[in-house]
Amino acid sequence: MARFCVGIDLGGTFIKCALLDEAMSIRGELSSPTPAEKGPEAVIEAMASGAERLIRQQGLSPQQIAGVGIGSPGPLDLDAGVVIGTPNFANFENVPIRDRLSERLGLPAVLENDANAAALGEYLAGSGAGTRIMVLLTLGTGVGSGIVMDGRVLHGAHGVGGEAGHLIVDPGGEKCGCGQRGCLERYASATYLAGYARRLIERDGRESALAEVLREKGELDGADVNAACRAGDALAAEVWDRAVRFLAIGCVDLCRLFDPDRIVLGGGMAKAGDDLMAPLRRHFLKEHWTLAEPKTALALARLGNRAGVIGAAGTAWESFGG
Amino acid sequence: MARFCVGIDLGGTFIKCALLDEAMSIRGELSSPTPAEKGPEAVIEAMASGAERLIRQQGLSPQQIAGVGIGSPGPLDLDAGVVIGTPNFANFENVPIRDRLSERLGLPAVLENDANAAALGEYLAGSGAGTRIMVLLTLGTGVGSGIVMDGRVLHGAHGVGGEAGHLIVDPGGEKCGCGQRGCLERYASATYLAGYARRLIERDGRESALAEVLREKGELDGADVNAACRAGDALAAEVWDRAVRFLAIGCVDLCRLFDPDRIVLGGGMAKAGDDLMAPLRRHFLKEHWTLAEPKTALALARLGNRAGVIGAAGTAWESFGG
Repeated sequence: MARFCVGIDLGGTFIKCALLDEAMSIRGELSSPTPAEKGPEAVIEAMASGAERLIRQQGLSPQQIAGVGIGSPGPLDLDAGVVIGTPNFANFENVPIRDRLSERLGLPAVLENDANAAALGEYLAGSGAGTRIMVLLTLGTGVGSGIVMDGRVLHGAHGVGGEAGHLIVDPGGEKCGCGQRGCLERYASATYLAGYARRLIERDGRESALAEVLREKGELDGADVNAACRAGDALAAEVWDRAVRFLAIGCVDLCRLFDPDRIVLGGGMAKAGDDLMAPLRRHFLKEHWTLAEPKTALALARLGNRAGVIGAAGTAWESFGG
Repeated sequence: MARFCVGIDLGGTFIKCALLDEAMSIRGELSSPTPAEKGPEAVIEAMASGAERLIRQQGLSPQQIAGVGIGSPGPLDLDAGVVIGTPNFANFENVPIRDRLSERLGLPAVLENDANAAALGEYLAGSGAGTRIMVLLTLGTGVGSGIVMDGRVLHGAHGVGGEAGHLIVDPGGEKCGCGQRGCLERYASATYLAGYARRLIERDGRESALAEVLREKGELDGADVNAACRAGDALAAEVWDRAVRFLAIGCVDLCRLFDPDRIVLGGGMAKAGDDLMAPLRRHFLKEHWTLAEPKTALALARLGNRAGVIGAAGTAWESFGG
């Protein structure tokens, strides 16, 4: 009877909704601005009305919807379905988002964190399709990650697993926001890449074409470093290569533990495409054991910022589709 | 009808057999020397006759045995049930140990590597009992490991997962036998500990009470370092602390990915008991993120060298008990 699931990706700027059928095919999508400054009730109402609109647009009745999956930034209490707090939303503290949305829609709902939802999205409909075990690394502001094994997202025993961005790849190294030292996230995020280049220029007085970009824009981002790298800038190449090497070490660690079919790279840094993948494969081969050829493929993500909403719907299938 | 499983732990010195009932209680055990120098057929025959003797001793008929699990040193081809080769056994190359034993006993058989079998043993009947997710690290000649999630051993997509001993904890560091640099195994095994102390004494001329031990015995082992440490030797303390710190970093990495209920420490180095656990907990707290208190407990293994045979029987239950 119920043959569809709704995914909702709660982003800082947009709320995305998608309707998936049993074959994980997308039947419809829509997007609306997130009323982030108006508080939890407005945000939940925007999510609910987006879902309702989408269901109506497709000519479906609520009885045909098995459930709703929500992908949200964290930290979250997944078991309780609660957003503990998220810096980009006003007054979002201990919001029982799952149960409130479920009541409002009259449908069962499930909560997942956005990085895990994106990983499940790529697993179901993107670069992870056809794999048994897949890891998604999202190289953006930080390094987000999600690990999917046999169709299920790895949460761990207390809901804090699957955080490959906080693998220690440089013991005693740079301090991370999480309190650890030497986390992968400190070296292989687009944000860090730009910050490190800036530091070498401003603090150490290193010469680089990026100094000019910095003067003009007042800031640098990962794309600037990639562009300077392509133009043959030595400092940019050094910064990029360093980040990619640490990323390769993280990938080797993931192979040793999960032996995945595929590690999928997404987020800002992955927009560099082959400028990321070629050196990553080179470093990966160099750091990888020689007992056997690497069996894990490295691939770019395919779904871009739609991975989250597709994975959110997939989370609903996992919970309510059976 | 079938209500028991047999586990066989194929060790370099002894073949151990155990009979487990459905409640994972051990009903009987026996052990016989491994005819390692006599070739595969003799070894398989010794395994089979051990199993038969145990079944008879318990007054059971083969019809009451659901299956046999074999824990073996590797490398193995688990899917094919084949020992690819193991240095401590004569002529052990591409031995189809699973099928040969199964034919000989007229019972279904399954092959698992010894580290994973030990992990499953601790999970079922030792320090992992009552957990959902458990990691066993065996600190011996190398660092063996096995990861058990919801009762199932993690093998990965190609059978080479769960190798926490080859997490890179010191990028660009010491060369490991596997071809990588900076593996956990290079820093936190009992063998390495002794070798590192020896190097500091012989190569760097460092002073230590261990120099005397080395002169007398001609060699050092992990227990010597632990003993010197207890007696207040500065070099021994430095070597021990360095190993334990790298071990703590490996434990943090495991927490970030698996968020286990418990990480269990076994093998030679774990015989130090609290001399291992107290500094390990201290380093673990220091390296662990501060976003939340550690949720993963660190504990000593309980089953000693019986973990493997119990886990081998558990592997048979997993495959044939249903």
